[in-house]
Amino acid sequence: MLHDRHIKHCRACGTEVRYQVPADDNRERAVCPNCATIHYLNPLNVVGTVPVWGEQVLLCKRAIEPRHGFWTLPAGFMELGETVAEGALRETDEEAGAQVELEGLFTLLNVVRVGQVHFFYRARLLDTAFDPGHETLEARLFHEHEVPWDEIAFRTVKETLQRFFADRREGQFGLHCADIG
Amino acid sequence: MLHDRHIKHCRACGTEVRYQVPADDNRERAVCPNCATIHYLNPLNVVGTVPVWGEQVLLCKRAIEPRHGFWTLPAGFMELGETVAEGALRETDEEAGAQVELEGLFTLLNVVRVGQVHFFYRARLLDTAFDPGHETLEARLFHEHEVPWDEIAFRTVKETLQRFFADRREGQFGLHCADIG
Repeated sequence: MLHDRHIKHCRACGTEVRYQVPADDNRERAVCPNCATIHYLNPLNVVGTVPVWGEQVLLCKRAIEPRHGFWTLPAGFMELGETVAEGALRETDEEAGAQVELEGLFTLLNVVRVGQVHFFYRARLLDTAFDPGHETLEARLFHEHEVPWDEIAFRTVKETLQRFFADRREGQFGLHCADIG
Repeated sequence: MLHDRHIKHCRACGTEVRYQVPADDNRERAVCPNCATIHYLNPLNVVGTVPVWGEQVLLCKRAIEPRHGFWTLPAGFMELGETVAEGALRETDEEAGAQVELEGLFTLLNVVRVGQVHFFYRARLLDTAFDPGHETLEARLFHEHEVPWDEIAFRTVKETLQRFFADRREGQFGLHCADIG
């Protein structure tokens, strides 16, 4: 889930950029010496769900790198033209072919090292007719004791699942904000 | 708070891009016909605080466009290398020169029209020695009845302030997620 986003040329005119601190700024940016366009690089949001069916949660086995063959919750980059919640629904449909109803934001996880913020909603599966897309080898339901903890694709997914099962034991779900080192 | 982010040239090699749907994708992206770099444009996070001192909240009068001369809560674009919370603290320092302690995420507001997600934390001011930066004409404390509602710079700021005062009357603060049309 990492793009190479390094900027070498100006997006407006194609000239090679210089890295410098613009006036009234305090960080180096890619600045175009020809047309003066300043290029900002900012964190990306990754949005997904914890789809729940009774006692079970839905995981997807990844068909793509990184982490091919590992299990994940349905999630992906938030797109322009959608809300955080709409993105989470879209990714759940695209990766698992699963239809859900969102039940509230559950985790907000900063992954500073890669410039991402991950958001997971709790979601109630409307049925168990999954139809995974090309990014997913298999989508299936797991009871807590069946979760393949050593084959989870991403730290944020593991963190979200652990907190989900812990909150469920407590009988109350909160919003969890945390930083992933 | 809106960048012109339109991509005309490849950031890697400077060639003029073409807009097309890449293989295994379902949206038009700027694709480089020379080096095949795919350019994604994703929503940006704006992060800030509701700085509180007793019964009062801190607002900043903007010294820059857009909305020069209007009042806002301290907020700005989240940067690489920081968490949502760290960005909110940094903006509070840069725009108001105010030192605060965060007290929990308060609003998450989607502004789909401009491709942004705004986050505001409730924050306790540690003192009232403000030292506004170059983006701010004036930073001052307001009681609820003094808030210049017709001179608030942004919808998300107005929404956040209204919900803050409403929750305070109720005696309990929650997380509010909403979409700004």
